[in-house]
Amino acid sequence: MKLGWIGTGVMGKNMCFHLLNAGHDIFIYNRTREKAEELIASGAVWKNSPEEVTKKADIVFTIVGYPKDVENVYFGEKGIFKGVHKNLILVDMTTTKPNLAIKINKKAIEMGIDSIDAPVSGGDVGARQGTLTIMAGGNQETFDKVLPLLKLLGTRISLQGKAGAGQHTKMANQIVIAGTMMGVSEALVYAKTAGIDPEKMVSAISHGAAGCWTLDNLAPRVIKGDLEPGFFIDHFVKDMDIALEEAEKKHIKLSSLELADKQYKKLQAEGYGKKGTQALTEIWKKEK
Amino acid sequence: MKLGWIGTGVMGKNMCFHLLNAGHDIFIYNRTREKAEELIASGAVWKNSPEEVTKKADIVFTIVGYPKDVENVYFGEKGIFKGVHKNLILVDMTTTKPNLAIKINKKAIEMGIDSIDAPVSGGDVGARQGTLTIMAGGNQETFDKVLPLLKLLGTRISLQGKAGAGQHTKMANQIVIAGTMMGVSEALVYAKTAGIDPEKMVSAISHGAAGCWTLDNLAPRVIKGDLEPGFFIDHFVKDMDIALEEAEKKHIKLSSLELADKQYKKLQAEGYGKKGTQALTEIWKKEK
Repeated sequence: MKLGWIGTGVMGKNMCFHLLNAGHDIFIYNRTREKAEELIASGAVWKNSPEEVTKKADIVFTIVGYPKDVENVYFGEKGIFKGVHKNLILVDMTTTKPNLAIKINKKAIEMGIDSIDAPVSGGDVGARQGTLTIMAGGNQETFDKVLPLLKLLGTRISLQGKAGAGQHTKMANQIVIAGTMMGVSEALVYAKTAGIDPEKMVSAISHGAAGCWTLDNLAPRVIKGDLEPGFFIDHFVKDMDIALEEAEKKHIKLSSLELADKQYKKLQAEGYGKKGTQALTEIWKKEK
Repeated sequence: MKLGWIGTGVMGKNMCFHLLNAGHDIFIYNRTREKAEELIASGAVWKNSPEEVTKKADIVFTIVGYPKDVENVYFGEKGIFKGVHKNLILVDMTTTKPNLAIKINKKAIEMGIDSIDAPVSGGDVGARQGTLTIMAGGNQETFDKVLPLLKLLGTRISLQGKAGAGQHTKMANQIVIAGTMMGVSEALVYAKTAGIDPEKMVSAISHGAAGCWTLDNLAPRVIKGDLEPGFFIDHFVKDMDIALEEAEKKHIKLSSLELADKQYKKLQAEGYGKKGTQALTEIWKKEK
């Protein structure tokens, strides 16, 4: 198939490679062209704008940074909606505002095409291995058309509801993570001050009711002092802010999420934005 | 062996049965005798006080409610320390204050015997199935002597350090759970107000970075409206208060744990103390 791919950051690049390796014709665009060079060298065709990518492709995938980037890519001067043609399907895999997903979908339908939102979870490792979790929102028929391609990228793929439902599910995902990150971080800090061996502690509790991905995957990194990003604090804060904005609109107070957001913003202010989310434990170093 | 067992609540009763079924002579005491009747009918021998139990046993196990109950059972008028004899080993499996574990151990050593703290995780199901996680603190040699018996009760058993280390590890366990409970509860509340299907949401996110025991085991109960206790809110608050007291002593601020403690205390005030910890989502019903 002729596929468009916009956004070749750490996630996007690895994901796009799976489509390329499956033999599809790929037309790519990225704000910084250098980040697309590896894909170009492997056969992807560079285009100078989202508009040009769109004109060439049957399905366009996007995975960029922030909601404003998504806005630009879709609605900008040389954006995707300038290149619309019959039977086009748009798939935004960026984690972004549910309302933006709905806005894109509305515009797509107005123009006689369709879109789905399909944010992912699983980090760079999942992107590389093609084992992402993909949470989609949109029309079933459109989802079914895109599904064989999504299967090249992920192992757990579900249609969660209509447009925006993928983004809402991703928000729920991030809300859980905010809680587990705080719980695990505080347990590690507690263990240290209590004088017990954090490794023994993690090993003892990780198979019971405290068991979680964060304990298995991030606690060992914290113990080793490895703060390198699996997932950037900057991106996590973006996601939490979207979820908090949604919660505010719905008049629900998510106190735990608010606290996590506040804590991570403290770390951003200290220059930790490009560190991994496991750097939360650094807060207590500052406070001590 | 001749074993003493003090505390035949939901956890204690089920645990004691494993020792009884393994052929040991069991001497039991419980504040409310009725709760021990099932064990008595199966061959356990009733004694009228912790002191009397202790006089008969080589190893005495205790699992009661609150730190003050532990104090009474060990240091009370007809308490364990009144019945001490040569080679006795004391094993407190209650989740209690690390300093109380240290105090018991000190007294035991003064009297020429030894003790370990060995709180558990895994709830009534783990107690029944003999699959508890047991986190011990104390002397290696004493631990090794008790280990064959602990193996009848649990599958993951570790010596975490000296006296009190078992309790500290259990606190770390509860701190993680406080975080995951808040994260999962807020995600469920978010999903509901966002109009997405909570079951689909949980199924989508539970195998990724948001994956945790709470999501697998308690979210489905919340979705069904089942608030029955796997673990009482009253007991969880007790545990969190112990952890917070320890944190205060060490001058570390555990904001997430503080928040969870505050939220659960709101529920206690509303009469939810005997409900399961998954009832946290009820807070939003009150607020709406």
